[in-house]
Amino acid sequence: MLVSALVTSLAINSGLCVLFFTLYSILRKQPSNYEVYMPRLLAEGEFDSSSRFNLERLIPSPHWLKLAWQLTEDDLLSSSGLDAVVFMRLINFSLRVFLFAGVIGVFVLLPVNCYGNQLEYVDFADLSNNSLDVFTISNMNDGSSKLWIHFAAVYLVTIFVCCLLYYEYRYISQRRLDYFQSSKPQPHQFTILVRSIPVPYGSSVSESVDSFFREYHPSTYLSHIVVRRTNNLEKLLKDAEKLYTRLIHLQSDPNQQKYKRSCCFGLLGRKVNLVDHYEKKLEGVEEIVRSEQSEASLGVEEVRAAFVSFKSRYGAAVTHRLKQSNNPTKWVTEEAPEPHDVYWPFFSSSFIRRWISKLVVIILCIVLTILFLIPVLIVQGLTNLNQLEVWLPFLESVLTITFVSQVVTGYLPSLILLLFLKTVPPVMEFFSSIQGYVSLSDIQKSACTKVLWFTIWNIFFVTVFSGSVFSAVSVFLDPKNIPSKLGVSVPAQSSFFIAYVVTAGWTSTSSELFRIIPLIWSLLKRPFTDSKDDEFEVPAISYHSHMPRVLFFVLLGITYFFLAPLILPFLLVYLCLGFIVYRNQFMNVYAPRYETAGKFWPIVHTSMIFSLVLMHAIAVGIFTIKKVDLASTLTFPLPVITLLFNEYCRKRFLPNFVAYPAESLIRKDRQDENDPSMPEFFDNLVTVYQDPDLMPINCSGSSDRLSSPLLSSAHRA
Amino acid sequence: MLVSALVTSLAINSGLCVLFFTLYSILRKQPSNYEVYMPRLLAEGEFDSSSRFNLERLIPSPHWLKLAWQLTEDDLLSSSGLDAVVFMRLINFSLRVFLFAGVIGVFVLLPVNCYGNQLEYVDFADLSNNSLDVFTISNMNDGSSKLWIHFAAVYLVTIFVCCLLYYEYRYISQRRLDYFQSSKPQPHQFTILVRSIPVPYGSSVSESVDSFFREYHPSTYLSHIVVRRTNNLEKLLKDAEKLYTRLIHLQSDPNQQKYKRSCCFGLLGRKVNLVDHYEKKLEGVEEIVRSEQSEASLGVEEVRAAFVSFKSRYGAAVTHRLKQSNNPTKWVTEEAPEPHDVYWPFFSSSFIRRWISKLVVIILCIVLTILFLIPVLIVQGLTNLNQLEVWLPFLESVLTITFVSQVVTGYLPSLILLLFLKTVPPVMEFFSSIQGYVSLSDIQKSACTKVLWFTIWNIFFVTVFSGSVFSAVSVFLDPKNIPSKLGVSVPAQSSFFIAYVVTAGWTSTSSELFRIIPLIWSLLKRPFTDSKDDEFEVPAISYHSHMPRVLFFVLLGITYFFLAPLILPFLLVYLCLGFIVYRNQFMNVYAPRYETAGKFWPIVHTSMIFSLVLMHAIAVGIFTIKKVDLASTLTFPLPVITLLFNEYCRKRFLPNFVAYPAESLIRKDRQDENDPSMPEFFDNLVTVYQDPDLMPINCSGSSDRLSSPLLSSAHRA
Repeated sequence: MLVSALVTSLAINSGLCVLFFTLYSILRKQPSNYEVYMPRLLAEGEFDSSSRFNLERLIPSPHWLKLAWQLTEDDLLSSSGLDAVVFMRLINFSLRVFLFAGVIGVFVLLPVNCYGNQLEYVDFADLSNNSLDVFTISNMNDGSSKLWIHFAAVYLVTIFVCCLLYYEYRYISQRRLDYFQSSKPQPHQFTILVRSIPVPYGSSVSESVDSFFREYHPSTYLSHIVVRRTNNLEKLLKDAEKLYTRLIHLQSDPNQQKYKRSCCFGLLGRKVNLVDHYEKKLEGVEEIVRSEQSEASLGVEEVRAAFVSFKSRYGAAVTHRLKQSNNPTKWVTEEAPEPHDVYWPFFSSSFIRRWISKLVVIILCIVLTILFLIPVLIVQGLTNLNQLEVWLPFLESVLTITFVSQVVTGYLPSLILLLFLKTVPPVMEFFSSIQGYVSLSDIQKSACTKVLWFTIWNIFFVTVFSGSVFSAVSVFLDPKNIPSKLGVSVPAQSSFFIAYVVTAGWTSTSSELFRIIPLIWSLLKRPFTDSKDDEFEVPAISYHSHMPRVLFFVLLGITYFFLAPLILPFLLVYLCLGFIVYRNQFMNVYAPRYETAGKFWPIVHTSMIFSLVLMHAIAVGIFTIKKVDLASTLTFPLPVITLLFNEYCRKRFLPNFVAYPAESLIRKDRQDENDPSMPEFFDNLVTVYQDPDLMPINCSGSSDRLSSPLLSSAHRA
Repeated sequence: MLVSALVTSLAINSGLCVLFFTLYSILRKQPSNYEVYMPRLLAEGEFDSSSRFNLERLIPSPHWLKLAWQLTEDDLLSSSGLDAVVFMRLINFSLRVFLFAGVIGVFVLLPVNCYGNQLEYVDFADLSNNSLDVFTISNMNDGSSKLWIHFAAVYLVTIFVCCLLYYEYRYISQRRLDYFQSSKPQPHQFTILVRSIPVPYGSSVSESVDSFFREYHPSTYLSHIVVRRTNNLEKLLKDAEKLYTRLIHLQSDPNQQKYKRSCCFGLLGRKVNLVDHYEKKLEGVEEIVRSEQSEASLGVEEVRAAFVSFKSRYGAAVTHRLKQSNNPTKWVTEEAPEPHDVYWPFFSSSFIRRWISKLVVIILCIVLTILFLIPVLIVQGLTNLNQLEVWLPFLESVLTITFVSQVVTGYLPSLILLLFLKTVPPVMEFFSSIQGYVSLSDIQKSACTKVLWFTIWNIFFVTVFSGSVFSAVSVFLDPKNIPSKLGVSVPAQSSFFIAYVVTAGWTSTSSELFRIIPLIWSLLKRPFTDSKDDEFEVPAISYHSHMPRVLFFVLLGITYFFLAPLILPFLLVYLCLGFIVYRNQFMNVYAPRYETAGKFWPIVHTSMIFSLVLMHAIAVGIFTIKKVDLASTLTFPLPVITLLFNEYCRKRFLPNFVAYPAESLIRKDRQDENDPSMPEFFDNLVTVYQDPDLMPINCSGSSDRLSSPLLSSAHRA
């Protein structure tokens, strides 16, 4: 790729960014768009969506930038929870890393690379016709002593990143403990989920649970709620809701047709009063629901799983951490999720079935990876224009136009990849939900890891190793030669990844700000709905799509900073955009849906360590290829030390992210002993995990169910 | 190797076995050898070593065989503990596997192999001049449909082994729980070891422990004992003991010289009464010991580690299983070993130091593996006689003698390997003790794993891949080609491993029965010591040298059963010998030194699974080489299913081997509630982990210390 192609891509994307930012500044001030751009503030009642028109609303203003900039971490914590803080700290962390690496890269490595002449001399007179490769390490002469500068940079950046990682892990670990200490009593702290409950003949699940915990944990056991299979109820309740909404609509709207003919698509038969018709239908459904509910309460559809609550956090933790039964596959315990976080479309209480579904998910992930080859191959075809011309000769005339070929090689490939990647997070979330997690937070956490590795594999490795999963696999089946192969292939793709940062990074951030899809959706549905009545939902950020993206860019930055330092300024711009945009979105758009109290950070940490080790492997390879064998050998201790550092962090910090230590739990329990509100809390605890489908049906209240779709999807056993 | 060379080796070893068994039958009846052959019975006072002479004592009798055969599992359990039962079940298990595989191998596969003609036709007229290879799968024709018989055998044996493994794991798991339920209250069930205790300024370790556990576990905490650094004391006490023994000797023996001159090697100076001299010296040492003891008790040399006892097993388990501190590297808890099992020559209370010593041990193991190349290379030289003749031409004349060359190729290589392997278990035990384990049982368990993998790597892989660690390593760095390389190399070494089973297996078992080294040692020291006074120690079986040996032979059997079925009869003989010999030794020789309650079985299980998967890899390779690609492809599911089976067993059985479940613990605690002896037990619990070096010194009682060297080596902080 030539410099000019990069400049084209840069121009397109900068233009798009400026356009999005300007449009956002204007559109956000229109009351009709409050729902899209500040649903959170709207839900909190801070805005009146029917304010009057004035001219100021049409002029873009940077006021929101200032607000986003001024947001402090404590504000963020109190408004959006620790997870949002962790996410913002990830961006902060990356900014710091790339500021450091950027100074080294741009002011030291880039000039050094330019003055090499392995490929060609840099043509300073006509910069735009230089290949981007002259700015990379490929341009360094073989055996040049200047490669030791790169070597030093690798060491410096590794040490810097490790130090920063250590302090960050310690900080977040401490924040997590503080958060726990300052939290109010919450049901999930006192509750565990028990599965694979053995039921003796002639007894019910409920009796079995009760007798087991009364026998073995008499001093701490409080109560339990057996999970029930309510799929039918779920469906019936949905039907009832639909009927109810339609009925309300009919009754309130005087213009609607209230009669229809009883058969043949309403053309023939006698006239029927629609209101009567729906009322009767609704009554019928309600009756069925009531009988189903009473049946379910009688234990007809009990599942061998239950939420068991305890009188103290420590009691719950002890029962959760110790294997309960002589048969470890019975009485399987795990931490209960927050009540509104319960989400298990594929819940299973059987040990074996959950195990099989894990295997199924592994197979599904492999299939997805293979299917994803198709877009990657298309992208590869685009970057190799010559090949494309051979396949599709009729394009030849079009592709000879400079601008078109620049767009096709510089902009299109990244955009296509980006669009296909957009579909991965929801798919992975679905896979994780099959896998047997019982809460949205766990599902998204697992999906986050899946999306991350999927991105690294499919975008990084498959692109690097010439666009085929199979050649990438074959490289890893020959571990001895991984570094040298990386050393050859990774620098060759630097121009593609620079373009990728600009396209995928910049565009995704600005479109995140602009919220294209919600905006279009809102515009489309506006003519059809009555804005007054309309319920709207405050969205939650999907960490599993945003976090892997940031982490992948950090991986690109860390691996390329000494190969092609040109990538760093673009990354920094991306991170700065992200810094402002995400703060703004947390303030205005996203409401937290769950609180993992920082459990996403270990994923970040692992990803950083992987990036570092990958960078070291590439460094070993490239120093060998450039015939500086001593540097190559001296790089070897670096991955070893990095992995040891990681191992230390795993021992020092990770346990607190898995479960709170006894010290914290007991101290927190003591703190509550004198709290006068605890008896009331314990009273509520008995019913808080009750399946909402089993609550007494009340159609006037059914809109409550609608507004919290998570609650209604919970307990789908 | 020719059949005749195998026959030579067979003859030598059978002769040796018969000789050893006959000699054993005679020697065991001599009272002077009771100490060697039945120390256990002697210690229990069942024999009088001074019985009179009669003729029967000189005639070999098979009576002991009958006794060993009749031993039941319950007898073994009560006399030698669950670990001995597990060891015997391993041999039982292997016998069953190879009876099944043996029938298939000898009656089906062996004839099929013989009638192939890839290498040459079997010369039935002159069997001894056939190469052993004609009995192996190498003799099968490429693409022969008879290879499907081998394929079926692989499937059958895998299924059989997996079923047996499942039932065995279940049985031992249940035995373990039963053993726990029927055990008397034992101190280590109520105690944990706490390390990395943070000590606030101005406080002592003891105060810190006390305040922590009184604060967080007031209802279950009982008492604690701080570990002390008593290396000096240890040495002083040893000196005192030596002096005391010499003094006793002087006083009791009227013939000994009781005076010596005070200087110049006893030649000049005034005469000194030796008894007085030693008495004075002893008094001096005793005084120093007392002052050191009081200093140690005052906390001068306290280590930041303590044994903490609880009022219930459940209480101890809960504290052990939950991370205690907000900083996971502080208050690190682990299960306490049995008091007499405590052994920590390299004890460290610091988290980092223990971590570093683990790394050191890994490096030491690698160094040992590289050093072990030397004997392996020697062995490789011997099996390739031609090469040896090139190196050492003067041997040519000797090596042309048929018998010599047969001994050199058939017998010597295995013997050399066997002798070098003998040195590995003590070295590995030393490595494991550096690694930071606190009990002999843990050290030997860890050494067992180390010795096993060391043997598999150094004997199996290095021999198979032409005698070089580096070529073996290079094979594993190219994972794609592992099966095909195994397929080529493994069958080629079948004759060596058949000889190895005969030499190493048969010889080691019969020499185990004959106890050559203890016998020689006893014969050597007999003239110098007075048999009346002499203290003798009942030895304990070192599982870490016997178990890996059996497991390695099982690995050989499983991997070679379809390649060279000729190995199976020899293996069966080995296992039958082992079955009788080890039962006999458990009855007469070995006393249990610790009780892990079956914790060795998971090692056995893992080793079996590894053997199966290795066998599958070889099968895939050999079917590919023999051009039965379909069979090769159809073998692929087998390792996958085996690994899934292993994963299931890990989930189903392993947790109970790591820690007892809450159900068992609580039931056992309840059972004790009504036991009237419990208050006394708890009183003793306070002092049972007391360092024996800190007990009040009493020279008349010091022989107690001598008889339990483990106790005295405990608490060497």
